[in-house]
Amino acid sequence: MNQEKMNELKKWMASENIDLTYISDPGHIAYFSGYKSDPHERVLALFISLNHDPFLFTPALEVEDAEKSSWTYPVYGYLDSENPWEKIAQLIKKNGVPTKIATEKDALTVSRFDILTNYFPNSDFSASVTPVIEKLQLLKTSSEVTKLMEAGDWADVALEIGFKAIKEGAKEQEILAEIEYQLKRQGIRSMSFDTLVLTGKNAASPHGNPGNTAVAKQDLVLFDLGVVYNGYCSDVTRTVAYKEPTDFQKEIYSIVLEAQLKAMDAVKPGVTAGELDEVARGVISGYGYGDYFNHRLGHGIGTTVHEYPSLVTGNDLVIEEGMCFSIEPGIYIPEKVGVRIEDCLHVTKNGCEAFTKTPKELMIID
Amino acid sequence: MNQEKMNELKKWMASENIDLTYISDPGHIAYFSGYKSDPHERVLALFISLNHDPFLFTPALEVEDAEKSSWTYPVYGYLDSENPWEKIAQLIKKNGVPTKIATEKDALTVSRFDILTNYFPNSDFSASVTPVIEKLQLLKTSSEVTKLMEAGDWADVALEIGFKAIKEGAKEQEILAEIEYQLKRQGIRSMSFDTLVLTGKNAASPHGNPGNTAVAKQDLVLFDLGVVYNGYCSDVTRTVAYKEPTDFQKEIYSIVLEAQLKAMDAVKPGVTAGELDEVARGVISGYGYGDYFNHRLGHGIGTTVHEYPSLVTGNDLVIEEGMCFSIEPGIYIPEKVGVRIEDCLHVTKNGCEAFTKTPKELMIID
Repeated sequence: MNQEKMNELKKWMASENIDLTYISDPGHIAYFSGYKSDPHERVLALFISLNHDPFLFTPALEVEDAEKSSWTYPVYGYLDSENPWEKIAQLIKKNGVPTKIATEKDALTVSRFDILTNYFPNSDFSASVTPVIEKLQLLKTSSEVTKLMEAGDWADVALEIGFKAIKEGAKEQEILAEIEYQLKRQGIRSMSFDTLVLTGKNAASPHGNPGNTAVAKQDLVLFDLGVVYNGYCSDVTRTVAYKEPTDFQKEIYSIVLEAQLKAMDAVKPGVTAGELDEVARGVISGYGYGDYFNHRLGHGIGTTVHEYPSLVTGNDLVIEEGMCFSIEPGIYIPEKVGVRIEDCLHVTKNGCEAFTKTPKELMIID
Repeated sequence: MNQEKMNELKKWMASENIDLTYISDPGHIAYFSGYKSDPHERVLALFISLNHDPFLFTPALEVEDAEKSSWTYPVYGYLDSENPWEKIAQLIKKNGVPTKIATEKDALTVSRFDILTNYFPNSDFSASVTPVIEKLQLLKTSSEVTKLMEAGDWADVALEIGFKAIKEGAKEQEILAEIEYQLKRQGIRSMSFDTLVLTGKNAASPHGNPGNTAVAKQDLVLFDLGVVYNGYCSDVTRTVAYKEPTDFQKEIYSIVLEAQLKAMDAVKPGVTAGELDEVARGVISGYGYGDYFNHRLGHGIGTTVHEYPSLVTGNDLVIEEGMCFSIEPGIYIPEKVGVRIEDCLHVTKNGCEAFTKTPKELMIID
């Protein structure tokens, strides 16, 4: 449970005269309450009241687990045969009908919003808590940075396992199975996202699907992966060569590396998110490959793998100490080559520190 | 791509005078288009027009993959630095401003709904396509049943791997790592959900988290797992004993098994979803354990692991041939014992056929 962040949220509620905030995104519920769960189509909700105790609302079969978590306030459950909204409305009304209710408009579905507004026809639902949560999550505390560092250490371990699994004829799917197996045996419960191992031409698709393609001589092999550790995510990408690469592969690699290192060097308080994107894009465009870098430079990271801020052209957000995000330029030339290099980092007083330490000079596996 | 289902959707659109349907749920986009992707916070959308060609809208970095999929209509992309909604609005307006636009109100966020309605202030957005998709997905075609059968076969394989991995001192996390490793090496890309392996008291939490608990003598070990195969999901639960179980464990197991078998026997066209739940609940309540069966009997399965119908008390939905769902009663006595037995099945002319064949008599592993 994160009482400090709940208190900050309540400060905002007080300033906006909001009586009640309904948190619906499971990742955000975990962020405030400490209780993490994927409710699928069932209802999991956190209600934070300005003047009363907050409460968690979960499916009946999760109540016990929620009570065992770090959450110390009440937990209420509902059976599959009950109407959860009826129960929620009753629980809220115990403390009177709220005048203003904030919801997560970027996470809540239209149906659930409509149901809730029908129970409180005279309440004002105009406020969205989404930007407030984004801002709360934007600046990480030192304990959050420590957790992101630990998650990063596990990503480095994962890469090491992956590099060792590369050999002639090894399939993408086999290499990723090896990575996840070793990690899960060591207690890692979840990856941050589906592990990517893409070899040769397949790496030219930034979000490709690993399959039965086997590693062959002069392939570049791209790993993009991360783990969830203590509720915090890591995300790292490395591209390595199997056997001596061609000059063209080396050239593309060196351009991406230059872009990644220059963007990392440019990270410090005061620069804008858009300027960082421009640094990397400028390097790649300077060599004539701008059209092949078809995604933003990076994204925030924390309890979720993609969060605020977005490092994209035109984003004027000013970078501050404590922000955590990825720097991940790439060049993808269809049917030819794909290279991406990515680290996530936290912004320090004068620069930044990466969460992942795996070397970035082109590694050649023999 | 599923042209047949798109045509059925268009019949509904014609009957409701709806010009355009916006599909936003990635699973439903895959269902109609054949292109599956997790866009995270980016925008992935499918627009089905009554009188014009449908189109897919994806992040720029996915356009190539989408074009390579079974989708044969246009694919449009947007860069991270572009406003996707501006582009979407332009693409829609090429064919004129729609009078009525249907959206997936159970999947679409309030923010995105608000953005879209702002671009089309004079269009009618009252229709929700959610119930229509639920109905389309409810009755599976024979080719869908075949895919569910195949996914079920893989779930049986997974259980066999898991049973073999049980030995004194084996940790939950190690057993599940072994299962996923063997499957991924054989080309399974994703599990339907986080694999559950829970031993002893841990199994008494229906949605518990596997961890470092080791299997000990007289533990019941619960496996709940499934795979995604050719876009279709499986979901199965078995509970097995390590070493000779106690009489109490055997009693609880036999009650759950009786409930599961009786409910399976009751499945046939004409019965209601609620009645099936009552059959299983009646068995368990008859033995005095009704309070410990704290979830519904089952859920639909298809391209997603939890879909329509819900087998829950009071649901009057009449079961028809071609429906596919789980039958999964359980008894969970905190700190003591947890047993669940689950098969997914399809309804046949006179009864049903399960997708998973792993025996259900209590297996004792020595």
